[in-house]
Amino acid sequence: MNSVFDDPEFKAIIEYFNQFEPALNGFLGFVDESPDFDHASFKFHMKEDLIGNIRYRTLHGGAISAILDITGGHTVFLKQFKEIKGLPLEKQMSRITKIGTIDLRIDYLMPGKGEYFVSTGYLLRRGSKVAVVRMELHNDNGDLIAVGTGSYTSG
Amino acid sequence: MNSVFDDPEFKAIIEYFNQFEPALNGFLGFVDESPDFDHASFKFHMKEDLIGNIRYRTLHGGAISAILDITGGHTVFLKQFKEIKGLPLEKQMSRITKIGTIDLRIDYLMPGKGEYFVSTGYLLRRGSKVAVVRMELHNDNGDLIAVGTGSYTSG
Amino acid sequence: MNSVFDDPEFKAIIEYFNQFEPALNGFLGFVDESPDFDHASFKFHMKEDLIGNIRYRTLHGGAISAILDITGGHTVFLKQFKEIKGLPLEKQMSRITKIGTIDLRIDYLMPGKGEYFVSTGYLLRRGSKVAVVRMELHNDNGDLIAVGTGSYTSG
Amino acid sequence: MNSVFDDPEFKAIIEYFNQFEPALNGFLGFVDESPDFDHASFKFHMKEDLIGNIRYRTLHGGAISAILDITGGHTVFLKQFKEIKGLPLEKQMSRITKIGTIDLRIDYLMPGKGEYFVSTGYLLRRGSKVAVVRMELHNDNGDLIAVGTGSYTSG
Repeated sequence: MNSVFDDPEFKAIIEYFNQFEPALNGFLGFVDESPDFDHASFKFHMKEDLIGNIRYRTLHGGAISAILDITGGHTVFLKQFKEIKGLPLEKQMSRITKIGTIDLRIDYLMPGKGEYFVSTGYLLRRGSKVAVVRMELHNDNGDLIAVGTGSYTSG
Repeated sequence: MNSVFDDPEFKAIIEYFNQFEPALNGFLGFVDESPDFDHASFKFHMKEDLIGNIRYRTLHGGAISAILDITGGHTVFLKQFKEIKGLPLEKQMSRITKIGTIDLRIDYLMPGKGEYFVSTGYLLRRGSKVAVVRMELHNDNGDLIAVGTGSYTSG
Repeated sequence: MNSVFDDPEFKAIIEYFNQFEPALNGFLGFVDESPDFDHASFKFHMKEDLIGNIRYRTLHGGAISAILDITGGHTVFLKQFKEIKGLPLEKQMSRITKIGTIDLRIDYLMPGKGEYFVSTGYLLRRGSKVAVVRMELHNDNGDLIAVGTGSYTSG
Repeated sequence: MNSVFDDPEFKAIIEYFNQFEPALNGFLGFVDESPDFDHASFKFHMKEDLIGNIRYRTLHGGAISAILDITGGHTVFLKQFKEIKGLPLEKQMSRITKIGTIDLRIDYLMPGKGEYFVSTGYLLRRGSKVAVVRMELHNDNGDLIAVGTGSYTSG
């Protein structure tokens, strides 16, 4: 597939990150399916590791909060990538590692049942100091499982 | 150690849960060090799996939100255990599995640096429908790394 | 105008409430412009009373949080009205006065500049115990000034 | 009373602000009873204007969120005053008017019954970009009515 993410600079940053990829991300097992730099989206499959309610086989609340937090940060990262394109890698890394969660709210709307799930991020505000992102988690049936709002230092 | 948690009923519930223990909990690697049924407390050690910022070797924000969410739920569980003591196990399980996170706010105050971390939960409200818990995460130096507030269905 | 709100039962409840109308509502000066029972919407005009930043003549953050809280509660109220239609007024009042805010998050996205503002509420979850509402505040230019999420006891 | 707030610079700023005092503050009717520059505290009396629940004569949720938001901002302001002491008034005003709420969470724990109420603010984080404040509202009986957490641009 020919996509905006074939950009060699983008690939280099992701590769660089992957060397140090947090094991938590691997454990959660999501895949970046963001359609473009303006919309972050992760997909992940239900698996034993992510079950929270042993009776109803639904997603662990901790997994949901972790994924929505990461989705929000990724939304800011994609936006920022467009702004730092062309800078030396070292400068890019310095900017990117400044992205951090200030605070986060998660609302759990429905039990997280499904074969797979998709999280999405929408940038609500991109100030010089602070970015605000709205996050959503849907299951494979299109049900809205959880929503979140996060404030991030915007690098 | 002779502790309130030597209560055989409490042990039975925990054992029952452990059979189905969410892998996420194992991945996060926390240990229950709650001093009594009125105060929930988890301890966990820094490890590669939980690193978020590859540059500064600090805790992953997703790990922090997951642990604080779980700490809040555990606070409600401990409180509830006192109320369901003596009921048949099946009834106890039915009550306990009704505990669920309604919503959650996390504030990340400092980078999560440390050898180990302690999360604690304080019950702010215990209504018939909703419980509200305040959570804190400290590092081994006593620094306040993050705080949270969660609303939970109170079983 | 002939509208769903011409329903005489609805009018009776509102009239009943108006006798005791909180002065705060009058001070804020909003008008109910909800298009139907599924969508709450308030409109209010900028006025001296609501200015927060003396330098930029923008809305007071406290006014924004108050209005979004009230918008969320009103969203739950409209939904509930459909369910209690036909009950005796006393029963209706008993149900309605059980609606209360559990918790609230507000994100201030832009300075609140404008001639008038419109707040809207969208029901995200309507459980037997808890309702969750998403609120938005736009100015007369269509800019998104603030968003909120509230959990309410659902009467 | 001889207090830290007798500082003539502090008085000048407050006087300057009072010229433009938002009417909302007057409506809410709180009085600054902060003991020092490290702890913000407001006191206000119950009055008809602030009643929300017409049946139980309790505080309006919107009044609570407004007061806790203002308390949080005031906490940041007091801290900042110590840092800008000695600067020309114009510079001080420029710094102070940069303090703004980024986001806010309020948890309503108990119905707000009481003759008077006291709100307090505790600074949790004071970064170069963002300050985080924890707020509490107690009634005259010492009951914890509501808690809040707010993120503010730190001027």
